[in-house]
Amino acid sequence: MENLAAFHTLHQVDLAFFVNTAVADQRLTPTKTAPHNFSGGPGALPQPVLEETQRAIMQVPGQPFGLLGISHRSTWFRDVVDEAEANIRELLQLSDRYSVLFLQGGGSLQFSMVPITLLRHSPQAAEYLETGYWSHRAIVEARREGPVHVLWNGRAAGFRSLPAPSELHHNPEAAYFHYVSNETVEGLQFHHSPGHENVLRVCDMSSDFLSRPFDASPFALIYAHAQKNLGPAGVTVVIVREDILERVPDNLPAMLDYREHACMGSIYNTAPVFAIYVTMLVTRWLRDSVGGLEEMEAINRAKAAELYQAIDASQGFYRGHAAPEARSLMNVVFSLLSPKLEQRFLAQAESAGLYGLAGHRSLGGIRASLYNAVTPAAVHALCGFMEFFRLRYQDSDEA
Amino acid sequence: MENLAAFHTLHQVDLAFFVNTAVADQRLTPTKTAPHNFSGGPGALPQPVLEETQRAIMQVPGQPFGLLGISHRSTWFRDVVDEAEANIRELLQLSDRYSVLFLQGGGSLQFSMVPITLLRHSPQAAEYLETGYWSHRAIVEARREGPVHVLWNGRAAGFRSLPAPSELHHNPEAAYFHYVSNETVEGLQFHHSPGHENVLRVCDMSSDFLSRPFDASPFALIYAHAQKNLGPAGVTVVIVREDILERVPDNLPAMLDYREHACMGSIYNTAPVFAIYVTMLVTRWLRDSVGGLEEMEAINRAKAAELYQAIDASQGFYRGHAAPEARSLMNVVFSLLSPKLEQRFLAQAESAGLYGLAGHRSLGGIRASLYNAVTPAAVHALCGFMEFFRLRYQDSDEA
Repeated sequence: MENLAAFHTLHQVDLAFFVNTAVADQRLTPTKTAPHNFSGGPGALPQPVLEETQRAIMQVPGQPFGLLGISHRSTWFRDVVDEAEANIRELLQLSDRYSVLFLQGGGSLQFSMVPITLLRHSPQAAEYLETGYWSHRAIVEARREGPVHVLWNGRAAGFRSLPAPSELHHNPEAAYFHYVSNETVEGLQFHHSPGHENVLRVCDMSSDFLSRPFDASPFALIYAHAQKNLGPAGVTVVIVREDILERVPDNLPAMLDYREHACMGSIYNTAPVFAIYVTMLVTRWLRDSVGGLEEMEAINRAKAAELYQAIDASQGFYRGHAAPEARSLMNVVFSLLSPKLEQRFLAQAESAGLYGLAGHRSLGGIRASLYNAVTPAAVHALCGFMEFFRLRYQDSDEA
Repeated sequence: MENLAAFHTLHQVDLAFFVNTAVADQRLTPTKTAPHNFSGGPGALPQPVLEETQRAIMQVPGQPFGLLGISHRSTWFRDVVDEAEANIRELLQLSDRYSVLFLQGGGSLQFSMVPITLLRHSPQAAEYLETGYWSHRAIVEARREGPVHVLWNGRAAGFRSLPAPSELHHNPEAAYFHYVSNETVEGLQFHHSPGHENVLRVCDMSSDFLSRPFDASPFALIYAHAQKNLGPAGVTVVIVREDILERVPDNLPAMLDYREHACMGSIYNTAPVFAIYVTMLVTRWLRDSVGGLEEMEAINRAKAAELYQAIDASQGFYRGHAAPEARSLMNVVFSLLSPKLEQRFLAQAESAGLYGLAGHRSLGGIRASLYNAVTPAAVHALCGFMEFFRLRYQDSDEA
């Protein structure tokens, strides 16, 4: 638990008790110092990063102006982009065969740029996994560019599980294979990396990128948009292997051509300076304050374990959406016995300073997102609240 | 001069004198209170906007979190987008026939989205004006999608002038007509709106949007990326007429389909929350503090007049790039007698607190960008410095 202690310190969490003014159950005294943000995204960012960002708005040390007055062609900003890239390379121990790009347009633009690059002129279909809301969105966009073979589809079973490796029968000639490592809406996460050694592997890691170590070497292309663990909304990281750059068709719109961005070191046109700067600070925080991705994963595992334990111990009052082996460490999705009770839960949670817990609009229910910057103290406060709420309502007529 | 007085007040400029420590010419006492930012972009933003942004980073009034902790699907952010749109509509007196969209990808993505929408399936060529660096970039991207007829080209004459209406012979059947209202690199600006009543008129207003009033009614589509007058880098405004939305081809990538963005009120996917929020503050500042676009234009005209006067009165020491009738109010581009003298000018200007004056990397020389947030005091300080520099070097061997 050394990691947790360090985490408390670096988030400057104090352990004062909170009192829920709506109730006075003396058995429950979950810790709370500030409102806690469980939003699915834009979600929480680390407090020290927010503080440094705030200072930089008016004055960047060593510069005549603040963050919003500095040109994207300045040496200072080139250094910011270079450090963000270097931090990501170090955190992932990434080989030189990959370019690290900072783009605009979010995961949604990557849903199109990937098949525009690899499928539009391919004689073979691309293979996709349909494991939830976001992988479906990726498939819709891919189908505009060429044939898609859905290798496995969890829709009929309500997107509650993920395929085992033995269930996936790849075509070694496929244009590429695409999956979403973590489905934020349904709270499903791969705990291994599916794929076939002969098929280009492409992954949307938007919601778990930099939350744990992983081996990048089997991947042809990885993308991750903010704002989850990475930085503020408005920037998307793409990690692309050199052989993929060689496959980019000629005469694409420049903004959709990975080569243009790689060639210009991510500053092809006016870059989103603010979003990239904060991303640099987040990656620096991960490297220096957290100590790396193994440490981050240990903290994230502990947070998720506490919350899933609260669900599992609730005697069916809280019901997890995902099958246990597919549970996400990032997004914990569960329901209560009725929509009316869920509304009451959300309202009372906000009164207790616990925000952003409504499920995605497509699924309803409750979702607690436990991204890197969500503190163990926040999760502990949530679990305390859940226990209080259960004891109060489990035998009521409303349950 | 009432506008200038008001502008001083709202920028909280005090009129203390500055002393250039490198020199002590007592005839010259230009005003200076802080470093001044003449960058071509990202450029200066209004000081009150920066201050409010800084506060919002940690705490948005009435919200549990700061700006970077609030979901793009929150009511609060919907209101931010709606106010930014309403402010732009009010400033431009825009008709309901237009949608106002906040997108990612900059002008560069619009260079492609416009011809993807209007040229890819058109039997007719699109008409473009090649008036400088940025219109050339737009033409390169348009040619990927279909035939382009360059109606007028200023390249052979060094991009120093703009066409008179009588020089433009439109084909009434053209797919559309595209021009750049202000060329930031060469410092050229249209002071009328070229076009033909039967041809869809499309304009890149990136660098003079919201710097002056204009009649939007002849336009089919207008786009403007930040960071010039609009807000911080990372957001692009598109104003698109309803009949253009009806012409969007089916099955485009969703992120390139104006209809998707219009249908979702600019929140199709995770929006660049920060950039749109600051854009809302800038438009609010224009409306409430400046008083509107007529007032803004009067201030901008006075600033540019003082600087062009300094060039014209320099007996050829400073040489303006643009023909007088095509001079930009936004970007004042000039050269000195030698590149060596220009380097000295830039270095001494920085010592005097005057930053961002290097010309665009494609042209060299000097460029002073006078966007909305650049104060008259800043321009006055620059003119004072220029006079000092001229007196010191005009008879030296280096000149």
